[in-house]
This record gives sequence, C-alpha cells and structure tokens, in this order.
Amino acid sequence: MRIAFLIFDDITALDAIGPFEVLCRIPGAEVMFVGETAGIKRADPKSLGLVADYSSADVTSADILLVPGGRGEAQVREKPHVLEWVRRIDATTQWTTSVCTGALILGAAGLLNGRPATTHWARLEKLREFGAEPRSQRVVEDGKIVTAAGVSAGIDMALHLVRLVAGDTVAQAIQVGIEYDPQPPFDGNAKRAPAPVMEVLRPRYQRN
Amino acid sequence: MRIAFLIFDDITALDAIGPFEVLCRIPGAEVMFVGETAGIKRADPKSLGLVADYSSADVTSADILLVPGGRGEAQVREKPHVLEWVRRIDATTQWTTSVCTGALILGAAGLLNGRPATTHWARLEKLREFGAEPRSQRVVEDGKIVTAAGVSAGIDMALHLVRLVAGDTVAQAIQVGIEYDPQPPFDGNAKRAPAPVMEVLRPRYQRN
Repeated sequence: MRIAFLIFDDITALDAIGPFEVLCRIPGAEVMFVGETAGIKRADPKSLGLVADYSSADVTSADILLVPGGRGEAQVREKPHVLEWVRRIDATTQWTTSVCTGALILGAAGLLNGRPATTHWARLEKLREFGAEPRSQRVVEDGKIVTAAGVSAGIDMALHLVRLVAGDTVAQAIQVGIEYDPQPPFDGNAKRAPAPVMEVLRPRYQRN
Repeated sequence: MRIAFLIFDDITALDAIGPFEVLCRIPGAEVMFVGETAGIKRADPKSLGLVADYSSADVTSADILLVPGGRGEAQVREKPHVLEWVRRIDATTQWTTSVCTGALILGAAGLLNGRPATTHWARLEKLREFGAEPRSQRVVEDGKIVTAAGVSAGIDMALHLVRLVAGDTVAQAIQVGIEYDPQPPFDGNAKRAPAPVMEVLRPRYQRN
C-alpha cells in the first residue's frame, strides 16, 4: 500500500500529519512525502519545516494520493506541471483524497468535475469554480475520490479510508492507538459559532 | 508568547503537530522546534522528517514548553543533558506541557514528582516510576504542568491552553478555524474497545 502525500510551502501542517498518523499505521503502508522538488517545505507559519523526500519526478504511481491544503494551495493551482502530476498519479490510484483546501487542487486538476466534494467551510463555494457540488459534510466519498472538510477533518477521513482498505477492526485499532476519543472544549462547527468568534476569524479567511 | 516544541528521532508526529496547529494561531505566538541538535528529526515511521531549526543550546527560555512522545522518548530519557535542558526551560515557563509519552520525559526530568499526570493509556502505570499519580483523563492540569493523554489528545490539551492564555473567544475561534468538529467512526477509548481490536494493538504496545 503506497501512500503519497503532496506537500508544498505554506501548507497547513495538520492537514497532512493528521492523516499521516492514521495511514502510516496500516499494515504494510509505505508513505512518501512528495514535493514539486524534494527538500524542506515550510508550513504556514514557517516555524515548522516538513521534508519532502521525493520530487514529483520520482513518484509515478501510488495506491492512495493525499492532497492537503493551506495558504499555499493557491500557488500550487498555478503550476500546470504539478496539476499534471496529480492527474497522472490519480490515474494509478485506488483512492485519491484531499483534506481542507487540498480539494481546490484536485478541482484545478479537473478531478472534481460533476462530483460532490467538500473542503474547509470558508472555501466551500469556491468548489463550484471547478464544476464540483459543494457538500457541507465532514467527509465526502464519490467513487474513488474522498474529500475531507477543514484541517482536523483529515483524521476522520483517514480512519474512513482505513475501514475501506483494511476493515473495521484495524481502523478501530488505529483510532484507539492514537487515543482519538476527542473532548474538544467548544462546538467547532462554524455554522453554529457565535458572532464574536467568527469576527476573530474574519481577517484570516477574507482572501480569494 | 514563545512556544518551544522539543522534537527528536522516532517521535509520534501528531503529538507535536496537533498542538502546533492550535498554538501557532495564538495572536503573537512565536514557535520554535528544538532538537538536542538542530536538523532533521525522523518521525516513527521514518518516512516523515520534521525540521528542528534550533538546538537545545540555542534556546534558554520559553513561555510554553511542549514535550511530545513516541517510541523515541525512551532514548531521550537516557540523555541527562536533554533532561537538564527540560528542567532549565521549565524554570522559565508559564506552562510546561506534554502529549502522550512526552509525560515520561517530564517525569524523568523530575517535574512530575507528587503530581497527578496523564500519558498514553498503554503507559499510564509507568508514570509511577517518576513519582507521578496516573490519571486516566484526556488532559490533566496541575499548577503550571499540563499533561495530555495519547497522540490526538494534544489537540484538546492545546485548546485548553489557549483558553488559559488567550481566553475562550480566541480558543473557540481557533477550534472553528481548524474545523475541529470531530466525527470519529468508532469509540476511541481503549477501556471500552472490544478484544479483537486490542489484540491488533498488543504487539505495538508490548514493550518496556
């Protein structure tokens, strides 16, 4: 089971590392972090560096492709050869997946046309630009394309994938192994958040 | 608000990156990834590399210290100068924190003596070796020491910390920003997991 994570500068780190922590525990999993070029990619904020051991030229197939999001996705969408790589890998995968605004990269690659999909709540409507049908859901599975909502939703999506590829017992074992028995202090749903909370978030999400 | 993450080889990546994704969003936060030496640290599994921009010699104080866990913690506990660094930074912090088996490093540094604390469910009893009182809780706060249960519990712990340092509105905004509205497919609590699930996990957690 070869699993390729696309990473890039200004990535939201948890978009990738949440699913990594789940998927790397599938028996026989072989994980590859892939950049346009190999080397260190700086997250958003840049105080964290993640290493791409592989360049896109090094990787020509995968069983699972995972495309995370973050502020840097807009730059990735403007790189035709990276989008071409996404399409080429997708042609070889069993599952092609995204977390957060990684869905916009799948969309720009033409993979979401006519499909239901999800992304971070702040960018949901933008999916229409790529012919996708936005769904306000945690995880959307459509054929072999699985998209997750924002950031932390990648953990739920990855556990969903493990059920599909390795069954419920292994999936629950991984969930228990990472002690994913969440006790968040608040309601994390944007639709139900009080106005002062959304006011704090406004500057961050007031972009393209 | 200077936040230091200790990282090392064979770290469980999500122990650090879950809290990073939360704490880096505190207004004015300055995050430092600190290794015994600077450079790339390989997670468990090694397919992921995380960059320590700072060596322990570079960092002499922090407002928050976060010590993650993972298979590599046993090696860290055998490095007196790293434990000495943990004690030295702790003497300067507002909050000293751990995720998962990072608590065993705090324990080995002598910081949990006589204190209630938590860690990954599989290692909870080991806390007694360091004079700590094991608590089967998601997050344990005792004075300025805050310990989290296994792996994903670091996200909950970090949101708890944000409440303490920046208040409820900012904390909820960060939770909504990372869309932390969890929908795990299973019950992730080890105490309630069925026998076949625990059987899958047995080889992984049958060590020191």
